[in-house]
Amino acid sequence: MSFLRNAWYVAAWDKEVTRTLFARDILGESILMYRKEDGTPVAMSNVCPHRFAPLHKGKLKGDIVECLYHGLQFDCAGQCVKNPHPGGNGPIPTRAKLTCYPLLEKWGAIWIWMGDKAPDESLLPDFSWIDKRDQFREIRDVCVVNAHYELITDNVLDLTHLPYLHAGGLGNHPRNLEREVVENVQEGNTFWCKRSSNDVEASPDFQAFNPRLKEFKCDKANAVRWNAPAHVGIFPQYWKAGTDREHLTVLNIATMMTPASENRTWQFWSLARNFQLESDQMDAIMRQAAAVGLEKEDVEMIEAQHRNMGTSDIFGLQLVSLPGDTTPNRVRKALAKMIADEQSGLERQESRVVPVSAHQAEPVLPGVRQENAASAPARA
Amino acid sequence: MSFLRNAWYVAAWDKEVTRTLFARDILGESILMYRKEDGTPVAMSNVCPHRFAPLHKGKLKGDIVECLYHGLQFDCAGQCVKNPHPGGNGPIPTRAKLTCYPLLEKWGAIWIWMGDKAPDESLLPDFSWIDKRDQFREIRDVCVVNAHYELITDNVLDLTHLPYLHAGGLGNHPRNLEREVVENVQEGNTFWCKRSSNDVEASPDFQAFNPRLKEFKCDKANAVRWNAPAHVGIFPQYWKAGTDREHLTVLNIATMMTPASENRTWQFWSLARNFQLESDQMDAIMRQAAAVGLEKEDVEMIEAQHRNMGTSDIFGLQLVSLPGDTTPNRVRKALAKMIADEQSGLERQESRVVPVSAHQAEPVLPGVRQENAASAPARA
Amino acid sequence: MSFLRNAWYVAAWDKEVTRTLFARDILGESILMYRKEDGTPVAMSNVCPHRFAPLHKGKLKGDIVECLYHGLQFDCAGQCVKNPHPGGNGPIPTRAKLTCYPLLEKWGAIWIWMGDKAPDESLLPDFSWIDKRDQFREIRDVCVVNAHYELITDNVLDLTHLPYLHAGGLGNHPRNLEREVVENVQEGNTFWCKRSSNDVEASPDFQAFNPRLKEFKCDKANAVRWNAPAHVGIFPQYWKAGTDREHLTVLNIATMMTPASENRTWQFWSLARNFQLESDQMDAIMRQAAAVGLEKEDVEMIEAQHRNMGTSDIFGLQLVSLPGDTTPNRVRKALAKMIADEQSGLERQESRVVPVSAHQAEPVLPGVRQENAASAPARA
Repeated sequence: MSFLRNAWYVAAWDKEVTRTLFARDILGESILMYRKEDGTPVAMSNVCPHRFAPLHKGKLKGDIVECLYHGLQFDCAGQCVKNPHPGGNGPIPTRAKLTCYPLLEKWGAIWIWMGDKAPDESLLPDFSWIDKRDQFREIRDVCVVNAHYELITDNVLDLTHLPYLHAGGLGNHPRNLEREVVENVQEGNTFWCKRSSNDVEASPDFQAFNPRLKEFKCDKANAVRWNAPAHVGIFPQYWKAGTDREHLTVLNIATMMTPASENRTWQFWSLARNFQLESDQMDAIMRQAAAVGLEKEDVEMIEAQHRNMGTSDIFGLQLVSLPGDTTPNRVRKALAKMIADEQSGLERQESRVVPVSAHQAEPVLPGVRQENAASAPARA
Repeated sequence: MSFLRNAWYVAAWDKEVTRTLFARDILGESILMYRKEDGTPVAMSNVCPHRFAPLHKGKLKGDIVECLYHGLQFDCAGQCVKNPHPGGNGPIPTRAKLTCYPLLEKWGAIWIWMGDKAPDESLLPDFSWIDKRDQFREIRDVCVVNAHYELITDNVLDLTHLPYLHAGGLGNHPRNLEREVVENVQEGNTFWCKRSSNDVEASPDFQAFNPRLKEFKCDKANAVRWNAPAHVGIFPQYWKAGTDREHLTVLNIATMMTPASENRTWQFWSLARNFQLESDQMDAIMRQAAAVGLEKEDVEMIEAQHRNMGTSDIFGLQLVSLPGDTTPNRVRKALAKMIADEQSGLERQESRVVPVSAHQAEPVLPGVRQENAASAPARA
Repeated sequence: MSFLRNAWYVAAWDKEVTRTLFARDILGESILMYRKEDGTPVAMSNVCPHRFAPLHKGKLKGDIVECLYHGLQFDCAGQCVKNPHPGGNGPIPTRAKLTCYPLLEKWGAIWIWMGDKAPDESLLPDFSWIDKRDQFREIRDVCVVNAHYELITDNVLDLTHLPYLHAGGLGNHPRNLEREVVENVQEGNTFWCKRSSNDVEASPDFQAFNPRLKEFKCDKANAVRWNAPAHVGIFPQYWKAGTDREHLTVLNIATMMTPASENRTWQFWSLARNFQLESDQMDAIMRQAAAVGLEKEDVEMIEAQHRNMGTSDIFGLQLVSLPGDTTPNRVRKALAKMIADEQSGLERQESRVVPVSAHQAEPVLPGVRQENAASAPARA
């Protein structure tokens, strides 16, 4: 298994890690997580070095984990601190130590660093809107996908699938594709694919989110942003066509993939909206949209692809490429280079991750119409 | 996976292929099938050459298939005819083409040709009785068997299993074996095993099919016929012993194996009877007989064999051979030679497939008694 | 698969083998078992040498097994005695012979010998208490464990897991570990780990078995005994502390592992008690204790270990060793040597198996207190 290791992965949503021992497979290893008495989350190998017992079956005593099988106790640095054998108080075996993994709790997620270098917070991509409760209301979940994580990255980076796979949901009608202006942008190791169009219909999901959007044609922006290893922001926005963002309706989608193995992936997703910030009912509507679009339509397609491909070497398959593959293919190549460099001991190249540009992460954007005036199709 | 490719396999029964996209694994490939607006069935690879999406999840628009994932459209020759990217109308990628497979609709089945040579209708074995509605009434179905297809061929070519595995059904009492005269015949690439016996009891199934057969001893003929790659006709017949076919009761069984993979097989079966041509109730009786004998007793045995063998190289296992294995073993060797010849680019040897002899496919046969008089055991 | 073959394995509990054909996978082979008309159990390969049909699907006619597929008949020495082909009475094929395995019915179990040497009853380990109905009442069962059999041996040979994995059941409180005196003993090829302690609390299970044990502190003995290939006796006993075995409460546990394959094991277990010999209700209490402790807690842990290890080469994993591993590790090495010797054609070394010492298998033991006085911790 070949993964980028000196990077942050989402290990869990914050609420998943509690005072109850919790295990999750990450990068092919079983990882034990829990919160210390002071609330700090910790992560370490879930496998007892004595006889390979799964530690999450054991007991949490203060900040100490006691193995269910023979009672070895480990502190939250992974060090064995008690061996009850023999006679209730034996010597601590030299190798009785669990690999511990640095965690970072930020924006509602618990991020894990499984590399050999010092954890580098500057490599954390920006999902700061999740915390801006005054501007956004957010729902989130995690689902398992029986596929290689890069297929999920491909999926979200190529939004040309929206009008087809999500025809009754997030995708607007295929005829609106004709008006779409696309920009594939690289900023250091951050990759963007920015799409915009004028005078289009809002998609069925957006019409349900904001019924006012049914009343007029819209201008639309939809950008996706990738950061290593597999963190994607999707930023669809609609507003009344030709206006200065009247009826602006924004959805900031975060989708962060954490490989359980080469064939199974945890997909952490979050939908943050700039409308109906107090509505539980809108939460339910959006949760239903995610259940259909993301957890069913996307997952079924991606798992079928994974079975059909039978390999993670997508370039070896000599597939047909379409314009929508530009950013997914660039990203695959960039990630492959990062992994290869890491494995050869080279420093990661390119600039550090750039914070989300104001015009994408914030609910108010500079005009798409103006920006793309030169290349945009004539108004209808 | 090593299959004979320049040959006809049953891809589906005719009613399975409609205006709804339909996929089936054949020879290890996922095959998409549907009917054109004019009713003609077509078959092609079910895997989109863009990103390996399963095409049968998509839409049928006229005779065109639209991929559910990104909307590529393919005509029924497998040619990509529309690419909506970018801007609703992009260039057609050169390699955007699906492998198409010739089909032939005949005798209630849709036959597929997956070889590299021109499809050769003369290689289609004769199952013409299925169409003779004035002489036969037929029921049919398809079942999946988790075993190598040649084990199913073995099963139907060696009818000495009938008195044991199907004791209460198609098999008559083992004591009747004593009277059986057997002929193993090769006609070109068609292999026959013809069994006949005089003064025997009809099997329980036949007694249920035609209660008159309970009243007297019978003469019996039961021949099986094999054609490459795995098409078998079974022709059991009973009539009043010593007569010129009074109370003649005929069942023509077709069983046609199509490998899904090396470990899984579609078994297409058809039972055509020459009696009670108008009876729905007799359909139900026969369907029940097939559900027990063919889809349960045979399938359980064959799947257990497959698990026990752990290989498709039956000759490497140095098994004990019995007389009933004569035709199955000849057929395995003939098929192995055909596959080896095909893979070395040699022409298939031996004569073309011979139509079913009149005395087997037709309800009225020349007397078994007379034919085998010389070698038949003395009458009881 | 590498197993010790010149050894006795439990093939079944006596009641499992009847006049109905019965199959069980043992050492990777499917074994057919049944009782002859005179009641003697027999065992042979379950795979017909003709076409690999599973013989247990066939018929038992007297002492003869008839294959369901084509009717070959085998006697209870595995010899084909009837071939009905052709004509009801064909020649017996030379190789139509099933490998037969010697059985021994003793102490409620049916033991099988799958080695190439003559079966040697002196290698049968002593579980004779099972038959002493005047002294013991016994319950028994068999469960399947999806793990390598040596992990189960490790589990039962290292009883330091009792206070942790079976905290509310067979294990007494961890604080009692402080008082434990341990002896690891080898007698020929029999390995013992003997544990004793004074002035301890009886475990919750023993308090339920004998409520009098709640009333005072106890002296305790718990020994485990291993014999090749994977036969373990466990002998926990409690009595009133400081007395000459007043309120002696004895449980003799037999747990005998038979590998189905390298990843799956039949665990035959028996609990024999020296108390409440007439009580059906106590049977139910003990059965419940086994369902929780042995069939759930132990099995879940062992299967998780097996999945985490991904290998049967436990020494290759460079695990941390604790004092409780002394006997398990010795036993693994002794068994590995026996298997290696057997495969190189060497005689098994070391003395023959020694019968259970009087002080362990019998309900009345010489005093633990006295034996271990020198090394025992001071009385509380």
